[in-house]
Parts: sequence; C-alpha cells; structure tokens
Amino acid sequence: MNHKEMLYEGKAKKVYAMEDSDLVMVEYKDDATAFNGLKKGTIEGKGVVNNLMSNYMFQYLEKKGVPTHFVEQIDDRHTIVKKVQIVPLEVIVRNRAAGSFCKRYGAKEGLVFAKPTFEFSYKNDDLGDPLLNEDHALALNLATKEEIDQIRHMALTVNKEMGELLLSVGIVLVDFKLEFGRLPDGKIVLADEISPDTCRFWDAKTGEKLDKDRFRLDLGDEQQGYRELFKRLGLEK
Amino acid sequence: MNHKEMLYEGKAKKVYAMEDSDLVMVEYKDDATAFNGLKKGTIEGKGVVNNLMSNYMFQYLEKKGVPTHFVEQIDDRHTIVKKVQIVPLEVIVRNRAAGSFCKRYGAKEGLVFAKPTFEFSYKNDDLGDPLLNEDHALALNLATKEEIDQIRHMALTVNKEMGELLLSVGIVLVDFKLEFGRLPDGKIVLADEISPDTCRFWDAKTGEKLDKDRFRLDLGDEQQGYRELFKRLGLEK
Repeated sequence: MNHKEMLYEGKAKKVYAMEDSDLVMVEYKDDATAFNGLKKGTIEGKGVVNNLMSNYMFQYLEKKGVPTHFVEQIDDRHTIVKKVQIVPLEVIVRNRAAGSFCKRYGAKEGLVFAKPTFEFSYKNDDLGDPLLNEDHALALNLATKEEIDQIRHMALTVNKEMGELLLSVGIVLVDFKLEFGRLPDGKIVLADEISPDTCRFWDAKTGEKLDKDRFRLDLGDEQQGYRELFKRLGLEK
Repeated sequence: MNHKEMLYEGKAKKVYAMEDSDLVMVEYKDDATAFNGLKKGTIEGKGVVNNLMSNYMFQYLEKKGVPTHFVEQIDDRHTIVKKVQIVPLEVIVRNRAAGSFCKRYGAKEGLVFAKPTFEFSYKNDDLGDPLLNEDHALALNLATKEEIDQIRHMALTVNKEMGELLLSVGIVLVDFKLEFGRLPDGKIVLADEISPDTCRFWDAKTGEKLDKDRFRLDLGDEQQGYRELFKRLGLEK
C-alpha cells in the first residue's frame, strides 16, 4: 500500500502518510465512542461497514456534484483520500428532532421539521465541541463567509441527495454530521466519513434505529443495525 | 398608581396589572442573581439605577427609530410599559469577547470582533437558556422568519446607537442582552430592560467593569460601578 508513518489516530480511524504527499490513507477501526469519548466499546465489523458505506456515499455524491476527498478504496478497511486541512466545524443537518437537539431544547424525539435545520459545532474536544452560529465561526476565524456559504450549500445538497437515496431503500435520514476540508488550492471538499457513526438512520416503517444510537443508548445488537443498512444499500458481498 | 394584582415576579423585577389591560407596571428590585440563579444577592440602589437607565435608553432608542414598550416613568422604581407577549429568545450582541463566549469557545476576554456578533438563546430557565441558531428557533416555532429578521435589524440598530452614545461618555459597550415582545397587533417592540444587569460596560480608558460582572466575579463595590455609569449619563440627581 506504500504507506508511511501514522499521522494521526482518532476515535474511529487511523490516518497514514503516503509517498504522494497530497494523499493519505485512512484505516477504519471497530472502536466506538460516544458522548465525547465518555463511553467506549467495540462493534465488530463496524470499520468495514463504515469504510465501504462512506466510499459508496462519497462516489454517489460526487456524481451529484458534491466534491469529496475520496480517491480510491484499497480494501475493506483502507481507503486513499486527498490530504486536506480540516475546517474546524462539525456541520449538522437535521430533518427530525433527535439526540442533542432533544436534550438541549426539550423537544420530542421524531418531531419532523418543516425545513432542514442546519447547525455548526466548533470541532474542539477540549471545549466539548460547543454549538456555535455563523457569527461565532467568523469571530473565531474558523472559516471565511465564502467557505461557510459553500459548506451550507454542499451540506444541504448532501441532505437532499442522500435522503432520497435512503428513502428509496426504506430508510429515513434523521440527521447527520459532516466535516469539510480545504485542498492546497483552497477548494472546499467533503471529508471525514458518512456512516452509521455519523448519521441517524431509522427504518421508515418501524422506526427502528440502524445507527450508533444502538450503541449510545445500549439498545443492543449494534452489529446487526450496521449490517442492515449495508444490506439495503446492496453493499453486502 | 392604580395598579392591581401582581402578575409575575422575576429575578430582578415585579410586574403588576393596570386598569388599562394593554399596560402593566414594572417594579425594579435590588435583588441580583447570576449564573442562572445559582448566585444570589442584593445591590443597594440597583433597582433605581436600572429603572432610570433603562427608561433613558428606551426613550433615546425610540428617537433613533427603535420601537419599545416604554410608556411612562412613575417614580424611581416604577414604570408603566405596554403589555407584550415576550418572544422566548434572548438576543445577545457582542462587540468584544467576554463572559459565556470566552468560556464556551476558549477565547481571550476583550478580543475585538471585526463585526458585531449576534446570538440567540432559548429563554427557558428549566433548560438553562440554551444557545440556539435561527434554524433552531424556527424549528421550535419560537418566532417567524420575519420576526427574526426584524429582531436582528433592531438589535443591530441598538448596538450602533447605544455604542456611540456610551463611547461619547468614555464607556465601551462590550455586549448586551435584549428581549423583544409582540403587541396585540403583532408588532415587535424592544421590551425588558437595558441596564448594567443586561449589558457589559467597560471604562474606555482603564477597562474597569461597570456592570453586573462586579457581582458575578466578586469584584466588589457593585453599587459604585452601577452609580458611575449613571453619573456619566447625567442621570444622577
């Protein structure tokens, strides 16, 4: 695979340098964390699901006009992506109330929003990834106004395209988190991953949760939840 | 004063019904609270300062084109205002980093922003007045898009006009919190109060704090801080 030293180890991924310094290789782990690292565990096979699903989505979104960091899948757990400087904003799009939205605002889980609800968190573990608005992001110099406008537009396109795709296989896209990166020329691309770790997916008929909430909320059988999604997208070999 | 029963007692004010049901009478107390009620105390004379200063500012802002709930000052502690339905949003405008902004985002106190930073909190004591953005406010039906646009415009006008006025007497307007209300016909007006309880005022030369942070941070001599501001605005009798 011609990779060199490990550059970074995160909660769910390792990142390795490549000979081509414009690229890095991502390795997806089975480690799971929740509540900003307070809850830890392992979901067997999660790394494979997340790698393959993420790559599937990135390629799908590229076709729909959303530029991403994806370059090439190496194997079930390894993918080569463009090296980016991550914009320190977690971008969250919500179609229904769940998770931190319900906790913060006392809203009922499942409340359907009239239009997608867009939010930023400051990607900063020490501060606990605090919520912020566009003015805050500008005041802290986390991104420019032009970058924020691009990110918002791309995130809403992801919501529309991924939402329609998932609904066609009986899954409701409840909410998701995206991260974006800057290429050396300043271009903004979708980065990180799109997977059951970073999205909420509910079965459209039964409301069953097919995502990391199974782990967060001790609902059990996380592996099965991740697999089900995988099957519906036709990714199971 | 022809007032009737007490309608409401808040942390710093009491509100009484009037014979004219379109009006209420506000009574300003000396009670001080901070950190969502966790810290309690009394600042002698605070009620008088806040009443007189608030009325002065509301009348000044009316002249600058900002509609307010102000009707008539009765005495040092009592004022008649229009009865409004309070929009459950705390509107905060920041010109420099201080208070919760620094705590949340790890920013240095006093950092000057290139442009005013605007934020909303959900006015809800049980939830701890959580931060929210415009999308959240719409999703929770706290206000309409038109109301939010009006509120933003009015808050930025208050920032400009009050900032210039205060700078002319050697005071920097660091940040402030506003509340808005709906009149029976739906018109949005500035409500609540504008005082050292709801603003941060720093001496432009020395940086001395002339506001509730003296109480919050145990800096001592709160009464003197409130009085100083009062003097500079020419409100002391």
